[in-house]
Amino acid sequence: MFPNADSDCLRLILVAPRNPLNIGAAARAMSNFGFFHLRVVNPYELAFREARSAVGAAPLLARAEEFKSLAEAVEDCTLVVGTTAVGQRQLQHPVRRLDQAAPLVRKHLAGSRVALLFGSEKRGLSNEDLSHCHWLLRIPTREEHRSMNLGQAVAVCLYELARDPQASVKPEKHVAAAAAADLERLTALLLDALRTSGYLKSRPSASSKRPSAAPTEDKIRRLVHRLRLSAADAELTLGIFRQILWKSRQDKDRTQ
Amino acid sequence: MFPNADSDCLRLILVAPRNPLNIGAAARAMSNFGFFHLRVVNPYELAFREARSAVGAAPLLARAEEFKSLAEAVEDCTLVVGTTAVGQRQLQHPVRRLDQAAPLVRKHLAGSRVALLFGSEKRGLSNEDLSHCHWLLRIPTREEHRSMNLGQAVAVCLYELARDPQASVKPEKHVAAAAAADLERLTALLLDALRTSGYLKSRPSASSKRPSAAPTEDKIRRLVHRLRLSAADAELTLGIFRQILWKSRQDKDRTQ
Repeated sequence: MFPNADSDCLRLILVAPRNPLNIGAAARAMSNFGFFHLRVVNPYELAFREARSAVGAAPLLARAEEFKSLAEAVEDCTLVVGTTAVGQRQLQHPVRRLDQAAPLVRKHLAGSRVALLFGSEKRGLSNEDLSHCHWLLRIPTREEHRSMNLGQAVAVCLYELARDPQASVKPEKHVAAAAAADLERLTALLLDALRTSGYLKSRPSASSKRPSAAPTEDKIRRLVHRLRLSAADAELTLGIFRQILWKSRQDKDRTQ
Repeated sequence: MFPNADSDCLRLILVAPRNPLNIGAAARAMSNFGFFHLRVVNPYELAFREARSAVGAAPLLARAEEFKSLAEAVEDCTLVVGTTAVGQRQLQHPVRRLDQAAPLVRKHLAGSRVALLFGSEKRGLSNEDLSHCHWLLRIPTREEHRSMNLGQAVAVCLYELARDPQASVKPEKHVAAAAAADLERLTALLLDALRTSGYLKSRPSASSKRPSAAPTEDKIRRLVHRLRLSAADAELTLGIFRQILWKSRQDKDRTQ
């Protein structure tokens, strides 16, 4: 999981961004996902460093490096990846989908610097900007509405880059489930309570040995299993029914 | 890939959102990723439908449904998932990481309606809001800076939901690479050109049969292979060198 030495090798470069709010939003997403090196090439508004949208990422934005040209901004990077909303506009560039691009970028980050470029809100990266790129990356959006908000596009790209490729394979951590024995105890208590309450006709529990004679018992057991109780909740529920049973028996004894 | 019948079953619900720009941004991301049903519960500013940030998603925003309570907003949904920036605040709710939550949501969408809840920018979902949820979802952000911008959080969640679970397994489509024979032809042409140009001493190519006598030829061949030319680019390069060779030989013939 990022941040680590690898994420420190990423340079996120905004080329000619127009809206300071988007620059701030990009900074916030960088901080969220553990990337700390922002570069800005020819921003439209020079006062972008005060963008209020950089919630929690003001220091990152203050440290952003400013460049006059893209060539200077990518100088120290060995892989330059451009982002595009267009499918295959530039036939001389391979265009990779974000989920397929991310493993390649991660591999490269383990050892050398990668520049990830985002163009301006209006026009994206120019053909000249693209000529600095080794290849392009595209977020898989709907054909009919490809163009994303800049801050959102940055967030989605960094989410995918920060993804632990092994993580989704790992089994999920569950709350400890109730053991079958507890569910069986609960079933028995519940049946007892149903009989004591008169909901079910009282009969010796030995009759449950005959499968065909115990449709109710089965029904109740299936119900208890469907609840998917945690161990703690099973404990709690057992306590509740023990108390109910104890009380109703005591009442019964008194009235007899 | 979305949109399809399944994505049509998602209801994205913003609970008490404060900033109309964030509502617009959420609408834009929904349109980008193919989800079209937005619901808003008690928005702070009632004029959110005109949010300029809904670039390309104005119709979606205009159709958003408004509710007075969360209970009414989730009424027709069979799975209600809340989003949270907090790890395990609510012990009675399982909290799943987005990448592990998405397959479960997708499975449920194939047949019934799912509500995906986002709380207000300031406070997230309240404890009462959470009591309507079956479980919670968390975007894996950095411990030290968990809180994301609302519009960005929506974009990241929908990107992950719209992800084709099979897609990243598929082999990438490559540009057709040059065949070894073309690279060998190019190597020979390049050596010829280097000799003709006087860069290398002219010697019969038969000498290349003795491995130790051909270090330059090997060096050039390795260079040509490192270029990883596409078939089209190899063709182009072959043409260029054929032309260079033809010209330089013609010049040589003239001067002799």
